[in-house]
Amino acid sequence: MIMPDSGTAIRRLTALPPGSSIGILGGGQLGRMLAMSAAQLGFHCHIYSDTDAPPAASVSESLTIGSYDDLEALESFARSVDVITYEFENVPVTAAVHLAGQRPVSPPSRALAVAQDRLAEKNFISALSIPVAPFVKIDAANTVPPEAADLLPGIVKTRRLGYDGKGQVPVTTLDDLKAACKTMAGVPLILEKRIDFAFEVSIIVVRAADGKLAFYDIPRNEHRGGILRRSTVTDAIVLPEITAEARAIAQSIAEALDYVGVLAVELFVMADEAGPSLRVNEIAPRVHNSGHWTMDACITDQFENHIRAICRWPLGPTTRHCDIEMINLIGSDVDRWPEIAADGAARLHLYGKDEARDGRKMGHVNRVLDA
Amino acid sequence: MIMPDSGTAIRRLTALPPGSSIGILGGGQLGRMLAMSAAQLGFHCHIYSDTDAPPAASVSESLTIGSYDDLEALESFARSVDVITYEFENVPVTAAVHLAGQRPVSPPSRALAVAQDRLAEKNFISALSIPVAPFVKIDAANTVPPEAADLLPGIVKTRRLGYDGKGQVPVTTLDDLKAACKTMAGVPLILEKRIDFAFEVSIIVVRAADGKLAFYDIPRNEHRGGILRRSTVTDAIVLPEITAEARAIAQSIAEALDYVGVLAVELFVMADEAGPSLRVNEIAPRVHNSGHWTMDACITDQFENHIRAICRWPLGPTTRHCDIEMINLIGSDVDRWPEIAADGAARLHLYGKDEARDGRKMGHVNRVLDA
Repeated sequence: MIMPDSGTAIRRLTALPPGSSIGILGGGQLGRMLAMSAAQLGFHCHIYSDTDAPPAASVSESLTIGSYDDLEALESFARSVDVITYEFENVPVTAAVHLAGQRPVSPPSRALAVAQDRLAEKNFISALSIPVAPFVKIDAANTVPPEAADLLPGIVKTRRLGYDGKGQVPVTTLDDLKAACKTMAGVPLILEKRIDFAFEVSIIVVRAADGKLAFYDIPRNEHRGGILRRSTVTDAIVLPEITAEARAIAQSIAEALDYVGVLAVELFVMADEAGPSLRVNEIAPRVHNSGHWTMDACITDQFENHIRAICRWPLGPTTRHCDIEMINLIGSDVDRWPEIAADGAARLHLYGKDEARDGRKMGHVNRVLDA
Repeated sequence: MIMPDSGTAIRRLTALPPGSSIGILGGGQLGRMLAMSAAQLGFHCHIYSDTDAPPAASVSESLTIGSYDDLEALESFARSVDVITYEFENVPVTAAVHLAGQRPVSPPSRALAVAQDRLAEKNFISALSIPVAPFVKIDAANTVPPEAADLLPGIVKTRRLGYDGKGQVPVTTLDDLKAACKTMAGVPLILEKRIDFAFEVSIIVVRAADGKLAFYDIPRNEHRGGILRRSTVTDAIVLPEITAEARAIAQSIAEALDYVGVLAVELFVMADEAGPSLRVNEIAPRVHNSGHWTMDACITDQFENHIRAICRWPLGPTTRHCDIEMINLIGSDVDRWPEIAADGAARLHLYGKDEARDGRKMGHVNRVLDA
């Protein structure tokens, strides 16, 4: 499943000057915040989206609405920009490889291939001797594999297109597992053992084309209904032993992918007797929701550093200057805006989405904790 | 010269919800940075500009290119938005008054009328018992008035449309003055006495519709060739005695205008024997170049607070969290971007202008001084 970059892939080696154009595949809130950082640095942005009126287009100069399978539209998009990136990991790898033959594409398409398939991802990470939850592939016929008994209780997950807890079914018994496999028949699956972690964290790393790395501090992440609800970053959470291990993991993954841009690694913290240890949950080859706190707590936030990396600029400082929490505004949470607007410690970030549907990320609020 | 707002002016009393549209008259860098702050709060922006491809349009949803005298185009613009503001003070007052009959316009058009005419401005400020440089009107025939001798050496200034040192001629003798009046024949003028100030500062105040005020710390401003070059804000510059006087002046002006939004007051600091005292140089009824440092040193910068004020939101905190200097990148200064990008204490803000003409503001850099 892991595809190398096309042999004709173009890699940009010198810094892209202001006034150049950045193409962004995907038009959601991540693309929107990338586009605002790009504009601040004097770049023009062109959004490629398969949906109408994407939030990123409101703050960008150009928009192409097209399918990610439409190679002709993608080529025309590529010709209009100087460098290409993406804001979500489900861009078809074929599209990224095709584009990489025309313009520099960062992060590399191999990162997409790995992140799109939970099996490829787990195999890739395990091969780097980085611990993950025990797992087993469930074959095309969705028959229960013999190793399954050792992995219960566990979680059946679709190998592809899962996000925000979608495509996941918890299973306790072999009967549960059989039922789940039947329900999800025809979709490639894996079974992961449920592990008893103490809490979840993530590490956001940015890697420049020359291999330089910069790490952000580690937030503790709380989910509700499978969706990230809150990320908190305080001196008490950023334990030195976790930090060192998390950075080593992120560095190892970024270097193995010859990564350029921002990479997020979601981690389980295991409260072992010998002290905390980490297992990788999953990776995201893009700016990440658990890094939104950097907008109001760091000199250079994750969005600007992603733009800097893909444009071959020097990375900016990732130093954190305050304790902070990020709370997602999901669905009708956004109706709380008057209260947030009146809170002097709160920084409101809204995504310009018109309809506050259930489960839809409408914005986030960063709240300084030591103000 | 001072016109009251139209009797039919609409004033918005309740907070404008995210998803509403803000109309901005003018499409330069101030409009661009206002639009980015508006987008962050979930507002849509519509730029009205009399020039093609204005920098603000790159980060806004809608653009109307039209003359500020085209009442039909302005009306159509007004109908498409919920509230209107402006980013430069030379919007014709008639346009602002006309628009104010259709949608709330902030700051009030009276502030425009005062700021557009140096004579109206000086009369208005003097009437508030706030000191200004001694001045005299030069009449339509541009004959030298009898009081002129007492005001030399001085500066002849056009009453209207001066900015960045344009429309100003220093004069030492009556002969100089006569020559200047001849050169500028037909243009309304004033003569100001040149005053021996120690240095220049400015105060940026934001006033909410309910009368609440928030002040930013006071930068020391250095000009070169009539253009602001550097603003520096450190604890050493923000002297308590200057601050108290500057705030009183800004408050008095803002209240007299029933102002809503960000107002800048440029001040001369006189090194009198009894201690420093202030004289008003001029006012700007808008976000101001000497407030750009707030983007990287304050929780809520001048752009967001202007948007908050005109949308009837509570003001955000103006607290400064570091010492900082702002340096304008004028013309070819912008070619220094690689060096600035590599400076970890520097925050680069570029305006997306293609051509780096002499004297053109291409961007600015905020440099944290105590990093």
